[in-house]
Amino acid sequence: MRFLVLGSAAGGGFPQWNCLCPNCRLAWERDPRTERRSQACLAVSEDGENWVLLGATPDLRQQILDAPPLHPRIAPRHSPIRGVFLPNGDIDNIAGLLVMREMQPFTIWGSPATLAHVSDGVFAVVDEKLAPRVAVALDEPLDPGFGFTLTPFAVPGKIPLYMEPPDESELSLGVEGETTLGLEIRSGGQRAYFIPSCARVTPALRARLEGADLLFFDGTTFEEDEMIRAGLSPKTAWRMGHMAMNGPRGSIAALADVSVGQKVFIHINNSNPALCKGSPERARVEAAGWRIAHDGLELGFAK
Amino acid sequence: MRFLVLGSAAGGGFPQWNCLCPNCRLAWERDPRTERRSQACLAVSEDGENWVLLGATPDLRQQILDAPPLHPRIAPRHSPIRGVFLPNGDIDNIAGLLVMREMQPFTIWGSPATLAHVSDGVFAVVDEKLAPRVAVALDEPLDPGFGFTLTPFAVPGKIPLYMEPPDESELSLGVEGETTLGLEIRSGGQRAYFIPSCARVTPALRARLEGADLLFFDGTTFEEDEMIRAGLSPKTAWRMGHMAMNGPRGSIAALADVSVGQKVFIHINNSNPALCKGSPERARVEAAGWRIAHDGLELGFAK
Repeated sequence: MRFLVLGSAAGGGFPQWNCLCPNCRLAWERDPRTERRSQACLAVSEDGENWVLLGATPDLRQQILDAPPLHPRIAPRHSPIRGVFLPNGDIDNIAGLLVMREMQPFTIWGSPATLAHVSDGVFAVVDEKLAPRVAVALDEPLDPGFGFTLTPFAVPGKIPLYMEPPDESELSLGVEGETTLGLEIRSGGQRAYFIPSCARVTPALRARLEGADLLFFDGTTFEEDEMIRAGLSPKTAWRMGHMAMNGPRGSIAALADVSVGQKVFIHINNSNPALCKGSPERARVEAAGWRIAHDGLELGFAK
Repeated sequence: MRFLVLGSAAGGGFPQWNCLCPNCRLAWERDPRTERRSQACLAVSEDGENWVLLGATPDLRQQILDAPPLHPRIAPRHSPIRGVFLPNGDIDNIAGLLVMREMQPFTIWGSPATLAHVSDGVFAVVDEKLAPRVAVALDEPLDPGFGFTLTPFAVPGKIPLYMEPPDESELSLGVEGETTLGLEIRSGGQRAYFIPSCARVTPALRARLEGADLLFFDGTTFEEDEMIRAGLSPKTAWRMGHMAMNGPRGSIAALADVSVGQKVFIHINNSNPALCKGSPERARVEAAGWRIAHDGLELGFAK
């Protein structure tokens, strides 16, 4: 199995178009301590010929240009991308479908709740006859036909930002249901997980991940309130439907005693100081046995 | 006035993610006869500090990264982009708004018909309180407040692809109305035009353009039926709401005796052989006094 990180940043990417936080300043200046990152997407393949994207970000066109395994190989039209699984309905998971509007057959999988967001309006440009929307059921393995299965499961999250009610007191946080999915990728006897959005690590999630070979997990912020303290946003990680790495309820602590072959943070916000090589926060992450994904990172395991 | 070409290709860009037509093959191979191009967008500024985008393509995040004048200059959050004018509702004109969802104030201008497409659904992510949608009237100059005016006018076109009726016989082509706009940019005594979509050059359009200093015009295809002949699509340029450069009804002939300071083709489809340096089609375009825009091209005139 091959796992190719097309993008590793949270919504907005790194640097973000309108941000001059300390991290983004380094990225704009191309300081060697930082690497630019596009929005989080993982491409998976068992045979190197047929690929499934987990998420479709607004950066997808550039991500494909930067990823030779995803280039077309047969004239006049072709793509190794055989399908897209949408873990949730956030803009940074669905807007890339608008890039895939050129009469190319592929499959779009997601929960009924997420598919509802990509089935009309501007998304009608992605012709349903060529790119059917196929609803998946929680905890049921899906076989796309390329040598691996995908099993979606609910993780704590929230509805997409564009669906939030005007009155914030009516918004439910940390909900487990169809809106926010993790994915198990299974090939032969090995298991990988892609969980780019997760508001809390539950006992059930810890049990599920135990013994996995590879985990890509929500690394949005380092501290729960870092965006507030930096004057970037009034929202905590929890309020955004995501998790901090650090702190007693952070992902590092919550997953410390879960045995996983490789733990990789993905969906990393531009405000997260662990993005910066040489920072104490990066050292803390690495000392805890995690690595920070970067665009172009390829991981895998033999069957 | 400064005119910065953020993107010069038609929808899909160059190369297109799923295309191996002869042009795209050269672009994938980074053959020196071709330059990669993102989707058509023009940034305009009088003072170099405040910029208005004409269109917002799916490539906008990368286009901003590649354009230093558009980088933020004030911590923690800032953008020199003060507004976006949407000439039409095509995906390659509106999807970039989804990139601008990070609580940054700017104005969105367009016809009521186009604004209707970007006011709800996923576009609710661009908060109306920070990014108000402001309807413009045809043939009335708009003053964004930065030293130039924008005057929208109707050109022959069609509704966006995602709004087309299932029965093609019900689709009207070459319609002049709110759906497809050209823009006059006026500063001091000088006039520029941005017309990325235009299905036909009418006598009224010829009269309007006479004496302009600068023209960016729809250069989608070279031949009316080139996509059909290449096996890429069953559609003519006219069917797509665009024009061919060549032929008795093409833009080169239609605008040959209209006096314009600089004539520049933009919104060039990946199938267009004039994209390829050294091609007979490129020679024909240049011999006719036109140039082919490329990403990063900056043109201007002093006040």
